[in-house]
Amino acid sequence: MRIARFSIDGNVGFGVLEGDELDVIKGHPFAEFERSGQKVPLDKVRLLPPVLPNKVVAIGRNYAEHAAELGNEVPDTPVTFFKPSTSVIGSGDPITYPSFSQELHHEAELAVVIGRMCREVPRERVKDVILGYTCANDVTARDVQRREKQWARAKGFDSSCPLGPWIETDLDPSDLTIQCTVNGEQRQLGRTSEMVRPIEDLIVHITEAMTLLPGDVVLTGTPAGVGPLNVGDVVAVTIEGIGTLTNKVIKRG
Amino acid sequence: MRIARFSIDGNVGFGVLEGDELDVIKGHPFAEFERSGQKVPLDKVRLLPPVLPNKVVAIGRNYAEHAAELGNEVPDTPVTFFKPSTSVIGSGDPITYPSFSQELHHEAELAVVIGRMCREVPRERVKDVILGYTCANDVTARDVQRREKQWARAKGFDSSCPLGPWIETDLDPSDLTIQCTVNGEQRQLGRTSEMVRPIEDLIVHITEAMTLLPGDVVLTGTPAGVGPLNVGDVVAVTIEGIGTLTNKVIKRG
Repeated sequence: MRIARFSIDGNVGFGVLEGDELDVIKGHPFAEFERSGQKVPLDKVRLLPPVLPNKVVAIGRNYAEHAAELGNEVPDTPVTFFKPSTSVIGSGDPITYPSFSQELHHEAELAVVIGRMCREVPRERVKDVILGYTCANDVTARDVQRREKQWARAKGFDSSCPLGPWIETDLDPSDLTIQCTVNGEQRQLGRTSEMVRPIEDLIVHITEAMTLLPGDVVLTGTPAGVGPLNVGDVVAVTIEGIGTLTNKVIKRG
Repeated sequence: MRIARFSIDGNVGFGVLEGDELDVIKGHPFAEFERSGQKVPLDKVRLLPPVLPNKVVAIGRNYAEHAAELGNEVPDTPVTFFKPSTSVIGSGDPITYPSFSQELHHEAELAVVIGRMCREVPRERVKDVILGYTCANDVTARDVQRREKQWARAKGFDSSCPLGPWIETDLDPSDLTIQCTVNGEQRQLGRTSEMVRPIEDLIVHITEAMTLLPGDVVLTGTPAGVGPLNVGDVVAVTIEGIGTLTNKVIKRG
């Protein structure tokens, strides 16, 4: 099932994708809900971020080839950092080039959407706390990342976390193609099977320290091929079995 | 004015401190509100974190003597990191010693509570976006901080961000005593005038990158004297003109 969050005529709702229509949800996808049977055409709505996470917990250097391309080793323990709720945008929303960077990079990632409040999740229970999966772009001000020891600004600026287009709830995430194009040209191509640490390990690692809330998102790292984004570029992240997250880079007005 | 958030008999509210009573607020401190005249005794309520921040943005190495005690230089640009909403507790709540650390440290800090949504705040407008100030403890798993390149787990675990006891709205924060005791013994003592970068600079730096929301909190760094916390310790952060934030360290049950 694919669950989208959308707005139409000023109203915000969730819907289940059926072909090129959304079947509007009564209730909330994180609780009890049913399909209302009321349909809206996908091309009439504005897609919103499919969740409004309280926090996004991201993992760095989880694909060996990507770690190597930036001259880094695969760390002994996962590199774990936050992207704030204020960085989240949806598919179709613009990525605003930040004023304090001259080197913006794309990073295509598989995003895990948490479905229930959880802490200290045992490895074998990880699947129970996941609602589904979506595409993410861990947009990074690479020059700022090099300059500033902690990455709150480099990876936490407004619009640095595109998520979408929707949540796919029925998916085996263990071996999917993950791709990033810029203006239609392929930049990143990998498979989720190349992750140094699989999703189960990441959720165990994170929830050893902190509670995850329904709607929180875990980013699982980016494959090799990261590179620059310029004003005017259209960047698209496509993950097999989910769909495509598309965003245009604009100048701050 | 001192604004506390509290619970009594299962109800949650805000109140304005008057002697040893709280005058219950009608409305919300971040919008229009008035005092109801209904009083509850301070010793009958449970104090809650005075705000529920969407994010806490924290600054490292903002007191030169503290940077030196950990063998660090004062950085060219402020070290900026996040503590998540799930790390926040109030005065009187327990700090739970994390399972993945053997070296927990206290870090007493002045916390700035943001009063309105803001971005790219000019230096001279910073005072307009601040609702008030409270005490914070940037509790840190020092061994994990050394081991993990990014600090999401070391400084973001559940209960690592005590805030309280209340928000003081009428305060000049530029030269206040900031003190930390453990079991009544003084560990940290500094003055906010020793900050490498004053609050204005920090808010400009943060909002250059990201939107701050009402209730978001900015931690301004810790003075020298950080040291270990053990199970059973009572740690207290006192800031001149605000009050005392007290928390006991407990073993995870």
